[in-house]
Amino acid sequence: MNLHVKPDVTTGPLPASRKVYVESAQAPGLMVPCREISLHPTAEEPPVRVYDTSGPYTDPDAVIDLNAGLPRNRSNWAIERGGVEFYDGRDVKPEDNGNVSGDRAAEAFPIKHRPLRGLPGAMVTQLEFARAGIITKEMIYIAERENICRTQAVENAEHKVAEGESFGADIPEFITPEFVRKEIAEGRAIIPCNINHGELEPMIIGRNFLVKINANIGNSAVTSSVAEEVDKMVWATRWGGDTVMDLSTGRNIHTTREWIIRNASVPIGTVPIYQALEKVNGVAEDLTWEVFRDTLIEQAEQGVDYFTIHAGVRLAYIPMSAKRVTGIVSRGGAIMAKWCLSHHKESFLYEHFEDICDIMQKYDVSFSLGDGLRPGSIADANDEAQFAELETLGELTKVAWAKGCQVMIEGPGHVPMHKIKVNMEKQLKECHEAPFYTLGPLTTDIAPGYDHITSGIGAAMIGWFGCAMLCYVTPKEHLGLPDRDDVKEGVITYKIAAHAADLAKGHPAAQLRDDALSRARFEFRWEDQFNLALDPERARDFHDQTLPKDAHKVAHFCSMCGPKFCSMKITQEVRDYAESGMEDMSHQFRNSGSKLYMEEDEVNALKQSNASLGKTTD
Amino acid sequence: MNLHVKPDVTTGPLPASRKVYVESAQAPGLMVPCREISLHPTAEEPPVRVYDTSGPYTDPDAVIDLNAGLPRNRSNWAIERGGVEFYDGRDVKPEDNGNVSGDRAAEAFPIKHRPLRGLPGAMVTQLEFARAGIITKEMIYIAERENICRTQAVENAEHKVAEGESFGADIPEFITPEFVRKEIAEGRAIIPCNINHGELEPMIIGRNFLVKINANIGNSAVTSSVAEEVDKMVWATRWGGDTVMDLSTGRNIHTTREWIIRNASVPIGTVPIYQALEKVNGVAEDLTWEVFRDTLIEQAEQGVDYFTIHAGVRLAYIPMSAKRVTGIVSRGGAIMAKWCLSHHKESFLYEHFEDICDIMQKYDVSFSLGDGLRPGSIADANDEAQFAELETLGELTKVAWAKGCQVMIEGPGHVPMHKIKVNMEKQLKECHEAPFYTLGPLTTDIAPGYDHITSGIGAAMIGWFGCAMLCYVTPKEHLGLPDRDDVKEGVITYKIAAHAADLAKGHPAAQLRDDALSRARFEFRWEDQFNLALDPERARDFHDQTLPKDAHKVAHFCSMCGPKFCSMKITQEVRDYAESGMEDMSHQFRNSGSKLYMEEDEVNALKQSNASLGKTTD
Repeated sequence: MNLHVKPDVTTGPLPASRKVYVESAQAPGLMVPCREISLHPTAEEPPVRVYDTSGPYTDPDAVIDLNAGLPRNRSNWAIERGGVEFYDGRDVKPEDNGNVSGDRAAEAFPIKHRPLRGLPGAMVTQLEFARAGIITKEMIYIAERENICRTQAVENAEHKVAEGESFGADIPEFITPEFVRKEIAEGRAIIPCNINHGELEPMIIGRNFLVKINANIGNSAVTSSVAEEVDKMVWATRWGGDTVMDLSTGRNIHTTREWIIRNASVPIGTVPIYQALEKVNGVAEDLTWEVFRDTLIEQAEQGVDYFTIHAGVRLAYIPMSAKRVTGIVSRGGAIMAKWCLSHHKESFLYEHFEDICDIMQKYDVSFSLGDGLRPGSIADANDEAQFAELETLGELTKVAWAKGCQVMIEGPGHVPMHKIKVNMEKQLKECHEAPFYTLGPLTTDIAPGYDHITSGIGAAMIGWFGCAMLCYVTPKEHLGLPDRDDVKEGVITYKIAAHAADLAKGHPAAQLRDDALSRARFEFRWEDQFNLALDPERARDFHDQTLPKDAHKVAHFCSMCGPKFCSMKITQEVRDYAESGMEDMSHQFRNSGSKLYMEEDEVNALKQSNASLGKTTD
Repeated sequence: MNLHVKPDVTTGPLPASRKVYVESAQAPGLMVPCREISLHPTAEEPPVRVYDTSGPYTDPDAVIDLNAGLPRNRSNWAIERGGVEFYDGRDVKPEDNGNVSGDRAAEAFPIKHRPLRGLPGAMVTQLEFARAGIITKEMIYIAERENICRTQAVENAEHKVAEGESFGADIPEFITPEFVRKEIAEGRAIIPCNINHGELEPMIIGRNFLVKINANIGNSAVTSSVAEEVDKMVWATRWGGDTVMDLSTGRNIHTTREWIIRNASVPIGTVPIYQALEKVNGVAEDLTWEVFRDTLIEQAEQGVDYFTIHAGVRLAYIPMSAKRVTGIVSRGGAIMAKWCLSHHKESFLYEHFEDICDIMQKYDVSFSLGDGLRPGSIADANDEAQFAELETLGELTKVAWAKGCQVMIEGPGHVPMHKIKVNMEKQLKECHEAPFYTLGPLTTDIAPGYDHITSGIGAAMIGWFGCAMLCYVTPKEHLGLPDRDDVKEGVITYKIAAHAADLAKGHPAAQLRDDALSRARFEFRWEDQFNLALDPERARDFHDQTLPKDAHKVAHFCSMCGPKFCSMKITQEVRDYAESGMEDMSHQFRNSGSKLYMEEDEVNALKQSNASLGKTTD
């Protein structure tokens, strides 16, 4: 490999974690990964299993060779189903990489795979199979994957079924393959899984499943290399990114994407208009349907799992954005707006939408219908332009569905808290319950440098209201290209938002991890508290900044309060005291007519509950 | 000064900012500070004024001498009103500083002020004056302070009156002194302003005013020095802390607090039971009413503006916490629980509540009725123990009001999103609309190291629903004592939450800063974007990491997209194009029966709007 790509990604398990592959009951031999976090023996609790997006990189038994790519286990699934053919794909052209040459050219990925495509008239997409009543391996895999924590929750004696407010979402206690099929068939969920992305571990996006997050990466004309982007992709999935969008612009776009997809176990999304624009030297007016079509095929053959297509930016809507404070802030939206005005023509994406569907159906590339007119400031939220486009996205959803394509809908952007809910409601209505995928939204404009937080607030809320996937925003938003640290900060922030949403929706198993961590916290099992955290490394590091000695990891106090003063320590004493004294006391107080202490049966229940937590009660 | 206190705090204005003192129309000579951020001349916009919590430290004309303390301008206000007397205060006793001696003793603050107290039967508190129909200088000052941005908003031609969802809050377009008086008289707001805190710049806490934030500081038995805590106090207010709580434990408590108050222009809150516990060597059972009473007087004489009093932790409620996952996590709550159980007695705070009121009335120390039984985990949110205590806090509110004392109510804690709103509704109902002051709430337990974010989500939401002040949580929560960086991260996160809440409530002027920043962003006025940000330093730093050259600060692109590809640049071209071509085009399309372009009057309106933004339109 040359200087542009170094095989330097982070591998190995997270602390106290091991990769577990669960065999599907419905499809023997189908192994579904999860992460198992073991607890300290004194906990006397089973290990906690959590959803795992990190792929083989966290499996110490996996051989990682970036030059070979990940194993393409899933390629056979499409072949087994039939209706597809291998063919000689499109040759890589110089313009695919911005006519880069010499030193500036990144080395091509060493292996060339022949692409698959659907045969004319054959079923290829998950939507087509679902509608035909066929449960695919992807659906079985996903049912197992979404269930992992639920089994644990039901096995766990203390677990109470969560009561959330789901705003009309229909979240079953267990996910069956048939439930997945039905959700796909009805368009309420998608499985982004290009038949050419054999490296993929399938996942689902829909509001009746776990809330997902996306991490954006990608080089630009100004900065960053191919190696950095591959590293960021692996890094983003290590911390919980469910999908990754490669938003590269500038040179080496094709090569960068190939390295990313061949090494990605999560769905990869792109915005094909970015590359198409590079092919016409950045002059939006020079874009043509032919260039765009060629780009779609190029990327579909590589294995991109979903395309952002800004087909809702119609000529008629563009003037609606002229009075805005921040005009059109979507790159794709701005490109299409310029094209439309320059030619005084309706968008070629809109006019060729059925042709686009025909291409995407052949590879099962999912639509992510782009919100090119999303608001870029609080002032522009929920305006005429935004909602006009949303209505068109609803119209296009039906067209894509009729063509057998899977669809999700992109959403804003910058929206104050009181205007978020109507976004979700309108999207569900206009787009016939197709999954929503929003960027934030940012709830204020005044905190550049902290837009992971301004948007994390909005993301948690819209996730609760029913948004299926949250596109992260990093601290560098509006200011620069995120580096590795920014990617992690963005991913963790969005895992918080997604998990807070799962809790609030009443996901049956979401609270399991909260409870395990809180018990660890209460019992001063510091190591368990770190290991159960979304970011064990930071939790440990922050603790050690104040109390670096190993002895403190088992100390019954923390640095906030000191040894004599810890409220948790005092509570433990209160509990012990209450338990030993309660029987006597409850008699005493019952006789005096006051019920200050618990009844005997309540005391027994408490003892039993404590015993199951591994505590001695006498 | 000795090694324990070094006069090392951050002073000087924030970038492009100057301190402006606005003279009150109602009280000539009364000067109310704000910060004015100037914009680049090309903006052709007036400077933006923002609420300023930073005190004299950001005024280059102020002479800062930590050994002298800030000027005690406000002391006269109480004296002018009458009903107060100077007297020889309580002498500092060795146990006030944990019997510290020798090298470990921090140097005492060099100046000893004689304390003021109310005369028997005299009106002292803002509540008493408000009820008597008297508008105090504090009320006039606050009206001016809360109005600063509103004047700007109304002066600003583009400003549209915000339409929010305020959940029953009654936010007027302008704040009058009479409105402040009425809100205080009815208990819906408080002005924490001990008559012995002459250094204070008065501020108000109530849901019909700007949402406020509190920053906690304080040393512990394990770590940190007096100098660090003074520095953190100044630092917290520099970034927007509206009040600061000194939660010191361990040694030097009295001395630390004295240095903090004498140098604080914001209200200082404390939890007196922490110091009382130190006085009995950390043994909760040994606490007595006499020790506690002595501590209240000690701190009231020093000038503490509000006391957290955990008088709602009644004996009967303690067993309700025994089944919890995390028991009692409030330090004050745990101390009182232990005391109650040890003695089999009702809490002495509850039993002596009227005595406590009598002390606090004499100095106008406001109550912050503590939530000693707040939930410490998602599992424990909104349980019987929490709500039982809340009802008692409502009962105590009425007692305190009858005694003339100002009251706010503390709230949780750890609460999943779907259980937040009922907290606010129940607090308003049970506590008769006394202002609510919550810690977060944290919306999940699984992200130690990021609890500023888990809680920032909950804080923004409960602020929107009506919470008057948000107590920050730093990234170190649960793990260690916050350092300077953590304090800033916590403050900025909570400024975001409070501002997002103001926007969503429909505060008439809140959007002004968002709009100014968004215009700067759209027009590539990078410097203005940085300067209008909550944290100008980080915004600039993040930008410069990718594009360090000064030339890029005026470049019409950023590092995300590069020069050819910036959506903002393209939008600007679209707008220019739309404007020049629109008149022709609108005729053309109107004739063909399609309305793709704007009507002539709309075009003219747009031109005018653009002209007012300082852009040439032809």
